Amino acid sequence: MKKMKAVVKTSPGPGAELKEVDIPVTGPDRVLVRVLTTSICGTDFHIYEWNQWAQQRIKNLPQIMGHELCGKVVEVGSDVKHIKVGDIISAETHIACGHCFQCLTGNKHICQNVKIFGVDIDGVFAEYAVVPSANAWVVKEDIPTELISVMEPLGNAIHTVLSGKIAGCTVLVIGCGPVGLMSIAVARTCGATMIIATEINKFRLELAKKVGADIVLDPARVDMVATVLRETQGLGVDVVLEMSGNPEAINQGFKVLRPGGRYSILGIPSKPVQLDLANDIVFKYATVNGINGRLMFKTWFQTTRFLASHRLNIEPIITHRLSLEEFEKGMELMRSGNCGKILLSPQ
Amino acid sequence: MKKMKAVVKTSPGPGAELKEVDIPVTGPDRVLVRVLTTSICGTDFHIYEWNQWAQQRIKNLPQIMGHELCGKVVEVGSDVKHIKVGDIISAETHIACGHCFQCLTGNKHICQNVKIFGVDIDGVFAEYAVVPSANAWVVKEDIPTELISVMEPLGNAIHTVLSGKIAGCTVLVIGCGPVGLMSIAVARTCGATMIIATEINKFRLELAKKVGADIVLDPARVDMVATVLRETQGLGVDVVLEMSGNPEAINQGFKVLRPGGRYSILGIPSKPVQLDLANDIVFKYATVNGINGRLMFKTWFQTTRFLASHRLNIEPIITHRLSLEEFEKGMELMRSGNCGKILLSPQ
Amino acid sequence: MKKMKAVVKTSPGPGAELKEVDIPVTGPDRVLVRVLTTSICGTDFHIYEWNQWAQQRIKNLPQIMGHELCGKVVEVGSDVKHIKVGDIISAETHIACGHCFQCLTGNKHICQNVKIFGVDIDGVFAEYAVVPSANAWVVKEDIPTELISVMEPLGNAIHTVLSGKIAGCTVLVIGCGPVGLMSIAVARTCGATMIIATEINKFRLELAKKVGADIVLDPARVDMVATVLRETQGLGVDVVLEMSGNPEAINQGFKVLRPGGRYSILGIPSKPVQLDLANDIVFKYATVNGINGRLMFKTWFQTTRFLASHRLNIEPIITHRLSLEEFEKGMELMRSGNCGKILLSPQ
Amino acid sequence: MKKMKAVVKTSPGPGAELKEVDIPVTGPDRVLVRVLTTSICGTDFHIYEWNQWAQQRIKNLPQIMGHELCGKVVEVGSDVKHIKVGDIISAETHIACGHCFQCLTGNKHICQNVKIFGVDIDGVFAEYAVVPSANAWVVKEDIPTELISVMEPLGNAIHTVLSGKIAGCTVLVIGCGPVGLMSIAVARTCGATMIIATEINKFRLELAKKVGADIVLDPARVDMVATVLRETQGLGVDVVLEMSGNPEAINQGFKVLRPGGRYSILGIPSKPVQLDLANDIVFKYATVNGINGRLMFKTWFQTTRFLASHRLNIEPIITHRLSLEEFEKGMELMRSGNCGKILLSPQ
Repeated sequence: MKKMKAVVKTSPGPGAELKEVDIPVTGPDRVLVRVLTTSICGTDFHIYEWNQWAQQRIKNLPQIMGHELCGKVVEVGSDVKHIKVGDIISAETHIACGHCFQCLTGNKHICQNVKIFGVDIDGVFAEYAVVPSANAWVVKEDIPTELISVMEPLGNAIHTVLSGKIAGCTVLVIGCGPVGLMSIAVARTCGATMIIATEINKFRLELAKKVGADIVLDPARVDMVATVLRETQGLGVDVVLEMSGNPEAINQGFKVLRPGGRYSILGIPSKPVQLDLANDIVFKYATVNGINGRLMFKTWFQTTRFLASHRLNIEPIITHRLSLEEFEKGMELMRSGNCGKILLSPQ
Repeated sequence: MKKMKAVVKTSPGPGAELKEVDIPVTGPDRVLVRVLTTSICGTDFHIYEWNQWAQQRIKNLPQIMGHELCGKVVEVGSDVKHIKVGDIISAETHIACGHCFQCLTGNKHICQNVKIFGVDIDGVFAEYAVVPSANAWVVKEDIPTELISVMEPLGNAIHTVLSGKIAGCTVLVIGCGPVGLMSIAVARTCGATMIIATEINKFRLELAKKVGADIVLDPARVDMVATVLRETQGLGVDVVLEMSGNPEAINQGFKVLRPGGRYSILGIPSKPVQLDLANDIVFKYATVNGINGRLMFKTWFQTTRFLASHRLNIEPIITHRLSLEEFEKGMELMRSGNCGKILLSPQ
Repeated sequence: MKKMKAVVKTSPGPGAELKEVDIPVTGPDRVLVRVLTTSICGTDFHIYEWNQWAQQRIKNLPQIMGHELCGKVVEVGSDVKHIKVGDIISAETHIACGHCFQCLTGNKHICQNVKIFGVDIDGVFAEYAVVPSANAWVVKEDIPTELISVMEPLGNAIHTVLSGKIAGCTVLVIGCGPVGLMSIAVARTCGATMIIATEINKFRLELAKKVGADIVLDPARVDMVATVLRETQGLGVDVVLEMSGNPEAINQGFKVLRPGGRYSILGIPSKPVQLDLANDIVFKYATVNGINGRLMFKTWFQTTRFLASHRLNIEPIITHRLSLEEFEKGMELMRSGNCGKILLSPQ
Repeated sequence: MKKMKAVVKTSPGPGAELKEVDIPVTGPDRVLVRVLTTSICGTDFHIYEWNQWAQQRIKNLPQIMGHELCGKVVEVGSDVKHIKVGDIISAETHIACGHCFQCLTGNKHICQNVKIFGVDIDGVFAEYAVVPSANAWVVKEDIPTELISVMEPLGNAIHTVLSGKIAGCTVLVIGCGPVGLMSIAVARTCGATMIIATEINKFRLELAKKVGADIVLDPARVDMVATVLRETQGLGVDVVLEMSGNPEAINQGFKVLRPGGRYSILGIPSKPVQLDLANDIVFKYATVNGINGRLMFKTWFQTTRFLASHRLNIEPIITHRLSLEEFEKGMELMRSGNCGKILLSPQ
């Protein structure tokens, strides 16, 4: 049996190891891919750091980390008809059961029995990876390998931005991590007429400008609420896209949302948040929607089309290109926040 | 100048007085009505009790209380073309400026400069009342006077229930005050397939059954979360309609909302509420919408049609019929909670 | 190999035969059911009559007819995990490929490679039938066998009625065949405040009243346009549900649609129809939507819930209960139009 | 009384005259503006040409022509509070009654009693014009005079493009007159990922490219249906925007609409059109929506924001800048089709 390099979470605690492991065996409804490139998600970092969430969530160690990838199919299972050897794929991370209420009503991404690629089963920080055929997204269009690798988080951004009206809207993006930055680019492409971005990390604030924010501000330095209200003639923004998970920022976001506006949340607060429901939601006639994953597979078609048509300016978000062996350097960058998206390639 | 009886909030403190005051004078774009009947809203009770909200909100004492009414037009202002003497009207409570962003984009009910009838200007607990012509809702259909008086709060219920999908949905109504009860009736009429109502007052819980709840429960006696999950085979309800303002109930409501569900809030918590945003909104892919007032005037057309077509079973909600003189008895009933809607009629 | 009775379309031309054929063999992702009852659809009648559509569409004779059923599972294929022997099922008729754009974006019912049960493959007018497991709808709720058999066409009605707003709306239903009648019942359950039904067959017009039409009219005898406009105070109806396929009726429907209204079409005209696009769609700011099949499987959940909650008054629509042997009598009734839904049961 | 130059339709027949007439007198709820620039609409051309529509529609000759303008307020009526002398305005053309069903339910643009500026009352091809205050759209933002003049037709384009989903969509624009061209620009700005435009006039086809069409084609020279299907891998486009009114083009548009797609129609066919309803709407599960005017005033806010934020590339559409005296040259250009938008300025 052949061997491959992989970044493996070996034990419950901080860190991970680059190991040589068996190349996995594909099953009847799976495909085996050679990994062209992968990218690091916040989730990967949490698993690496072994934060509270990871301690409770990760059960099956040792496990190969990672879930964002661009791969080339080298073997297809016997039941797989619509994928062939040589196809280039990205992968949807949510493995759905197909039989629950959500799966049967167009919401597979919130399947009651969902398994997450790289969280519940072996992932993609390796030379080869096995992908369930239903999760393999074949890319026939002319899209660079690097962008294919980030289609999954880009799908998060697209799903969030397009979960309500955006064209002709003023928008506040709270938090400029990679998905926040992608949301800026998507909102820009989809006709937002003013995009204000907030972020405390200066490196990311600069990136926000590059991908299309009209106004960027560091809430630690300027009064975010006053600034947004001034820029919107006192009305507030039509849309808030919350990408930070920060309780204070979440509340400030509500203060600058216009009456009748939309507040979409992708950021994950680490504990309960106190909200002024009466003033900020009820009297404000606001709509708040939580976002999770991507529509399977409406969002993937959108993602593909945006990238294939060169309408999205997201290249600046890929700030670092490392080899698989350099994964610890990647995790250091994640910790510093001085990065956009970081690629890890097995060469 | 002729005199009339009116319930007047005379001074900042609990209570109100039945007084004889001048019949008000109509203006060019107003109509004068003889009040056929009025009804008591929770807002009136708060002003009567002089709670914290009322202390901050009510500025212009003395002021005639009340805003829900059925009146007969006895005089029309010179600029009023579409209303004539003898018309029967109900009244929209939100007086909109007509020029702000919300007014110009179909959301007059959340006008930036809104004035509230009976809160910012004299109201209708009187023999006569002046109504801005733009707020007079002429009822030509054959609808009983009593039901015309409650069209305004019924509009709240209709606006809330119809602010998302309801047909074929399972619904939890939290809190069975008059608008909660009306929401049950509306949900029943609009095709909800299971309606669960929660309320701690036994009198109101009985009313909930009468107007169409399939299951009623007192959260002080039974485990609400467990019950709702059991009745929905563990899935949770499609829709939560929050009418209580109670922080604990609000949080329980989220626990029984199915992934991808709708959570509409009309209830007003008196202070900030702690929410598990991550699990109850983001991962749950929930949509939360605050509701305020009624659409001007789409909801009024709906309200009229439901009543005129006898499709709505809301008569049981009107539990008490008092004379204007008995307003204090009405307020006592409000305090006890042993009531649905209470009418106050000037004979 | 055991034998069973079946209604078989044996040759290209009018008619069909009751024959004894082999009980079909289930495959790995299929289930075999004993048919408890079936019901006749207009499509079956077209195949029986061998009309122009059938001549072009039906390729694989001989073929067992029929697609609406209630069956009891007697055997499950090796790959089927979520269905077990003894389960009661209805069946979705559209067999989707699962891989095309529509299948991957929540619209399996309009799959590019769709096969229709009873049209492209053997159907259910028989003692036993094989159903693809993805098309078997397990009914665990307490719903009568007869109603389970008509869930498929009822799904058409529900899909049509709920393809836009209906609560608080005035509705015109054009054509009172079984699906038209079901649409009346659904609109009634979902809060339509006035339902006008048109139909030239007197038997069906009487049924329309029984299932909830407020006004029924025969357009051959009364001026439909004038009547509808009068009943709606000249405004026209909010919603037209077209179930007739009749060109003249379709055009009249547009004349009574209010500006900004919805016109949903399920009826199939047999040839192109001339429309006054300028006045009836553009200037009228109308929305016209074609309806096809049912959402897979959102509509099935709705259908199940409406039936299980006894909210729908559709029993009167089942007018005839025949044995499988009497299928020709059933087809005669279809021809006469003096029927609602006709059941065919293999005992 | 002071005099001014104006283009006046003096008699029922082809043509118009430049005349000296009285400067109009403003009323209590009107404003008088000095016209900075105006632009020619197809409607103006129809009135000039005196086509069949104009013959039936235009009642009050003599009448000043024109309705698109940028003006500077020189006098405000006594009841007007929100506009002041010196304000720069554009004007909404639909004068709504304010009291009909549509006006009261957010659809003033399809008011039952609508009057059209420049059609039912004197228009703006003049040095001065009177505008009802409710129709004056004050522009405080920094937008060039020329673009303010074309805000009304641009609103048509925005209303059409945004009447359904557009971001991530493939779009076919049929007909590249000024509003068709604007629709291309709007679709481009709002995230359409492929825009195909059809037009038989070569001048306009070149403009289509300049404002953002990805593919332009002349249906008289190439097979439109085959081309669009090929460019969309056989799927068809998600959205058709019909701007031509041409029956053959309308039908071809349906052939290339993907199943489940949107077909929005702003073009006005001059007579009834035969459609294959069964295949092109019902089986196709298509949504067809007629568009008329602009949302009052949601579309105006969007229009203003797009222009003020420089997100829209519509400058190339303004192809000719004439003086008021040259109106006949403008009409000649309209007849030839070798133009985009034509400005007429009274100096």
